[in-house]
Amino acid sequence: MRQDQRLDNELRKVEFITNYIKHPEGSVLVTFGDTKVICSASVEDRVPPFMRGKGKGWITAEYSMLPRATEQRNIRESSKGKITGRTMEIQRLIGRALRSVVDLDAIGERTVWIDCDVIQADGGTRTVSITGAFVAMGLAFEQLLKAEKLKKNPLKGYLAAISVGVNEENETILDLDYIEDSQANVDMNVIMTSDGQLVEVQGTGEEATFSRKQLNEMLDFAEKGIYELFQMQKDALKEFGETIESSAKE
Amino acid sequence: MRQDQRLDNELRKVEFITNYIKHPEGSVLVTFGDTKVICSASVEDRVPPFMRGKGKGWITAEYSMLPRATEQRNIRESSKGKITGRTMEIQRLIGRALRSVVDLDAIGERTVWIDCDVIQADGGTRTVSITGAFVAMGLAFEQLLKAEKLKKNPLKGYLAAISVGVNEENETILDLDYIEDSQANVDMNVIMTSDGQLVEVQGTGEEATFSRKQLNEMLDFAEKGIYELFQMQKDALKEFGETIESSAKE
Amino acid sequence: MRQDQRLDNELRKVEFITNYIKHPEGSVLVTFGDTKVICSASVEDRVPPFMRGKGKGWITAEYSMLPRATEQRNIRESSKGKITGRTMEIQRLIGRALRSVVDLDAIGERTVWIDCDVIQADGGTRTVSITGAFVAMGLAFEQLLKAEKLKKNPLKGYLAAISVGVNEENETILDLDYIEDSQANVDMNVIMTSDGQLVEVQGTGEEATFSRKQLNEMLDFAEKGIYELFQMQKDALKEFGETIESSAKE
Amino acid sequence: MRQDQRLDNELRKVEFITNYIKHPEGSVLVTFGDTKVICSASVEDRVPPFMRGKGKGWITAEYSMLPRATEQRNIRESSKGKITGRTMEIQRLIGRALRSVVDLDAIGERTVWIDCDVIQADGGTRTVSITGAFVAMGLAFEQLLKAEKLKKNPLKGYLAAISVGVNEENETILDLDYIEDSQANVDMNVIMTSDGQLVEVQGTGEEATFSRKQLNEMLDFAEKGIYELFQMQKDALKEFGETIESSAKE
Amino acid sequence: MRQDQRLDNELRKVEFITNYIKHPEGSVLVTFGDTKVICSASVEDRVPPFMRGKGKGWITAEYSMLPRATEQRNIRESSKGKITGRTMEIQRLIGRALRSVVDLDAIGERTVWIDCDVIQADGGTRTVSITGAFVAMGLAFEQLLKAEKLKKNPLKGYLAAISVGVNEENETILDLDYIEDSQANVDMNVIMTSDGQLVEVQGTGEEATFSRKQLNEMLDFAEKGIYELFQMQKDALKEFGETIESSAKE
Amino acid sequence: MRQDQRLDNELRKVEFITNYIKHPEGSVLVTFGDTKVICSASVEDRVPPFMRGKGKGWITAEYSMLPRATEQRNIRESSKGKITGRTMEIQRLIGRALRSVVDLDAIGERTVWIDCDVIQADGGTRTVSITGAFVAMGLAFEQLLKAEKLKKNPLKGYLAAISVGVNEENETILDLDYIEDSQANVDMNVIMTSDGQLVEVQGTGEEATFSRKQLNEMLDFAEKGIYELFQMQKDALKEFGETIESSAKE
Repeated sequence: MRQDQRLDNELRKVEFITNYIKHPEGSVLVTFGDTKVICSASVEDRVPPFMRGKGKGWITAEYSMLPRATEQRNIRESSKGKITGRTMEIQRLIGRALRSVVDLDAIGERTVWIDCDVIQADGGTRTVSITGAFVAMGLAFEQLLKAEKLKKNPLKGYLAAISVGVNEENETILDLDYIEDSQANVDMNVIMTSDGQLVEVQGTGEEATFSRKQLNEMLDFAEKGIYELFQMQKDALKEFGETIESSAKE
Repeated sequence: MRQDQRLDNELRKVEFITNYIKHPEGSVLVTFGDTKVICSASVEDRVPPFMRGKGKGWITAEYSMLPRATEQRNIRESSKGKITGRTMEIQRLIGRALRSVVDLDAIGERTVWIDCDVIQADGGTRTVSITGAFVAMGLAFEQLLKAEKLKKNPLKGYLAAISVGVNEENETILDLDYIEDSQANVDMNVIMTSDGQLVEVQGTGEEATFSRKQLNEMLDFAEKGIYELFQMQKDALKEFGETIESSAKE
Repeated sequence: MRQDQRLDNELRKVEFITNYIKHPEGSVLVTFGDTKVICSASVEDRVPPFMRGKGKGWITAEYSMLPRATEQRNIRESSKGKITGRTMEIQRLIGRALRSVVDLDAIGERTVWIDCDVIQADGGTRTVSITGAFVAMGLAFEQLLKAEKLKKNPLKGYLAAISVGVNEENETILDLDYIEDSQANVDMNVIMTSDGQLVEVQGTGEEATFSRKQLNEMLDFAEKGIYELFQMQKDALKEFGETIESSAKE
Repeated sequence: MRQDQRLDNELRKVEFITNYIKHPEGSVLVTFGDTKVICSASVEDRVPPFMRGKGKGWITAEYSMLPRATEQRNIRESSKGKITGRTMEIQRLIGRALRSVVDLDAIGERTVWIDCDVIQADGGTRTVSITGAFVAMGLAFEQLLKAEKLKKNPLKGYLAAISVGVNEENETILDLDYIEDSQANVDMNVIMTSDGQLVEVQGTGEEATFSRKQLNEMLDFAEKGIYELFQMQKDALKEFGETIESSAKE
Repeated sequence: MRQDQRLDNELRKVEFITNYIKHPEGSVLVTFGDTKVICSASVEDRVPPFMRGKGKGWITAEYSMLPRATEQRNIRESSKGKITGRTMEIQRLIGRALRSVVDLDAIGERTVWIDCDVIQADGGTRTVSITGAFVAMGLAFEQLLKAEKLKKNPLKGYLAAISVGVNEENETILDLDYIEDSQANVDMNVIMTSDGQLVEVQGTGEEATFSRKQLNEMLDFAEKGIYELFQMQKDALKEFGETIESSAKE
Repeated sequence: MRQDQRLDNELRKVEFITNYIKHPEGSVLVTFGDTKVICSASVEDRVPPFMRGKGKGWITAEYSMLPRATEQRNIRESSKGKITGRTMEIQRLIGRALRSVVDLDAIGERTVWIDCDVIQADGGTRTVSITGAFVAMGLAFEQLLKAEKLKKNPLKGYLAAISVGVNEENETILDLDYIEDSQANVDMNVIMTSDGQLVEVQGTGEEATFSRKQLNEMLDFAEKGIYELFQMQKDALKEFGETIESSAKE
């Protein structure tokens, strides 16, 4: 039995508080158990140099933790004067994942800046960030559509992410909290779209290895969890949530 | 009349949500109107090199804003690779102010790290941070006292800060929001202790100047506001709030 | 009695050696007792990006100390690779103060770079820098006027700054040297214009506090000292000094 | 047909020139088609701070490209003053992969520094680096064993990596060169050990997605390629290659 | 007798492997004994800001060592985040030297980037880099001439460099290897053109001094070695080598 | 005729104002024509890590220019966040030169920090810095000897440096000012000791070349100038100057 009584393939309690801060075009406070992340989507009317003149938009992400989001206080990356490799990996992953469900032509020469700031960390911050960032980005697109700055919904479907792993007892488990994560033999992040396709699979044996069979079981667990997240994202986005599905069918 | 119907010497709605995040020894979400700051106090069992071997503690502060805390998105200081002059000024001010009400001998060779992270900004973030940081630090000391790591309450009194200014109509106003602040001729930050003494006075004519008479009126307004804040801090700290007063009298 | 026999409200010996170095449009070696600062004003025919196209000028300041200006050798900021918070605070203060007496429209799209380099430090380097920088800037404007690059004198009056404090015996003292400064309970910097207005007031209890009464006495002392400095600045600027007063009256 | 006439599941020409440079404990020039990487393994008799006092060793990797390893010249990371996110991802991956086949207890308090410097790039530089780094590390361990600094072979098996992808025609292909990689819909890196276990699986839809079926086919291709690489690594390591297998069986 | 049996005025074995890597316009692997450097010349169709609009070209150089090019592993400059003084000195020297034999007008508004990456170091890396970089640059010019991007050969002659020194026995020696270099009293680098003129002379007493007589003997040795290098450069450049001489005579 | 009427082998007016600033153990304001440098020598009672435990001292130098020491204002290296290659070259040269005349054993485990800050630049700043730094260092040693912290004078002789060059008319000239330097074909810096030995010779054809004959004439001019400087250094150091010669003879 897991320490918080969850089943092996059960998600933690998930919550989305939309429009959590007032300035961004879209924002959400997303909670998975004790992991809390403020995700915001900011729209800028220009694109980075390498995208100019293509008539297409761009989506880029930044990720950070408050120093005391964790059990031990972390030194701020601004104090260190540089961003760690871990942060860079995560923000590249978030940006890449979100771009996979957006029709970049449909947003015109605009950049959507995604900011994921972890207020409290208890495992899974990168997958929680992606799942929340999708909602913040959806809210921003809804606002642009209402303001008639966009002609069509640029979303090609839902996008969610979840962590999955193999614990010390060799059991596959879904949505690991910090303690489970630090003890796991294998750690995998899975990102999927609502048409059942994979966007990214990153499985790592932490000084351990894993078999093809274990890989497949982890993917099964992830798929189940992600489908539950799609439903919660849809609820959080309200009427706009419905639009996504129909726009995706076009 | 002020745009939000406040009187010239009236504070915005102030709220303290204590223990807002679970890991720090003390934390609070402090709200002044639309300005929201997460303040946390983390206790580390050692002091910086310049304080070693003196048997005394140290208090240091860091301040940051989420990129989209403001109307326009700001570039993260971690991405820039350096901290701006404004941030440095603010975090030095917060640390200095808090140290003025703490008996550093009483905390032993420990460092209290204060983190003030602005979630949403609408003017007065530095004074809101100081006022909230005092509460977070109070909660941390309460926890150390309960755990018997401290023998006596190191607080020598309450500490709060407020902004005050002179607007374009030459009227003195208290607790400026962002729009008032950006239009003010004079901007002043005042920090006081509960024994009625000044800790810091920083008045700046923004490409303008001010008279001794105006300085005095601003100080009167600030004093009124700060005494109201002391009462709210006391309520937020509950029983521990009462302790401070009696410990201060010793 | 003060260690150097000065009265409590007496300035140290002040001297301005104008045109101290040959390349800048204006330069001065300013001396307050053992504090010596080279101030130079350099005029550049363009403004920073945020000021472009407004038809106005800008004034910006940089401050530094030679490594052995102080009793203990300091590591160069260029070797550290970053500027300390203290330096940033000081250079922002110098720039803000000078801008308060300059008609930025009158200088056109030009930047005046103020450089304050402390050759020898014995307390009060930031107020000495401001007082000297005003003279260097005046000399630069005089040169621009003579060369008919400016149509009118952009100076709206004189500007000077002084430090004032409360010592351990609770006496208010003017123009603190290094030893007095390091032992003072309260330290305040006051910047004023020749029409008797305040530009900036920064009072700090150094792990101490101060009353409104003490604040007022410090302001009285500062005012006396600053009026003496105005006369010396006028003498240093010679005929141009006279012009300032009449131009200010327009 | 692939542009270089290879079958879809065929590796490029692979070559290992061992002891390519004289100073490191182990070194190899590894070639996959036109991709050439110098891998070296340097042994240092101490471990990083977080590993001290555990009696265990550590393996860490650095990765870089010569500026003109690529078609367009890249700016050196030393000139930029910082390491890109891509470089950080790769060097963390190399280190993690190598640690999975090494008994860290068996190497004692030593650090093995792996340097992978890409001399010429034509796709797959990260997987080529891992495959070559294993050989360099093997040579270093062989030298330590001969010098009797190690009591037993710390290698738990062979380790190799390969890239695999899905091209625009939706065909799965093995060991992509630069042109194939830049046109692929899906790009996956697979790292395996000689006991048939997975160490790392990183599959990314490049603004595309992929199905579970495609994931499986890519893994099949990768497995085939990696088993061929194990044989070539064994040949390159000569007698020591044989030792690995037997030591792995213990 | 020198440890490798060379005469005092004898060069080490020198080799040039031209077109060593495929992407650059010109490249060479140059070897002097155990010192090996990859030199590449990359042509960019624009010049740095300070050269724009002059109708002239520019030549700039970068120099680096692989971390384990040396007996002890060196920390990468990209990891340190800054370039050492030694590296800066060397790359400025290489650029300056090469520019002395090139008609910058003849290359038009182009930049030639020279990259010298030391694969293995055994003394003399800066002079080996210059000597090799000349060949790489020659190959790049040959390519531009063949492609009719240049109208005339911009080379005004050959350029080579060598180190020379005075050892502990007060003997002058040519082309010092690492051990000789680290024990030498005096170390001098000499750069010459094929018309017998000096481009750069840098002689340094390493915590020692030297006489005018010794300086002259070192210059004699250097001249002898450099003339031998000119012949080897000519052979490496094949027919193009011949062109240089005739173009130089014009 | 030179623009300032000097003979080709004539120095500019040279002046040493000793003990120019009060804090350093030794300091001097050295002037060569319009080039003015503050040199200070600071003694620290420890050595850098690579010198520890050897019972020897170390001498290290830093060099900087005030931003407006030059005709055009230069950006501060502290603002840029890094030291230029030119600065690094110069400070390495100053340190190396001074170490050549000091018995490092005689100063014990101490570091002498040399700071050369150029107040006004008009050519030759590096050679002026070396010549002045020798005097500042001499004054510091004199103070240490008087305080009986040193047993014997660590100076092995005098040290001075001068620039020499070949102008556009192919004439050799001594001690170039800024205009001469910027127009010269060849620029050479020569450093010598009072026993007539060379410490460093750095001759550079600035996009030009020079013959052995020209090299010799430049060395003759330099020698003449340096011998004049030795006499002025001796005068500046007063009685201590005499000591150096006799200590050198021991």
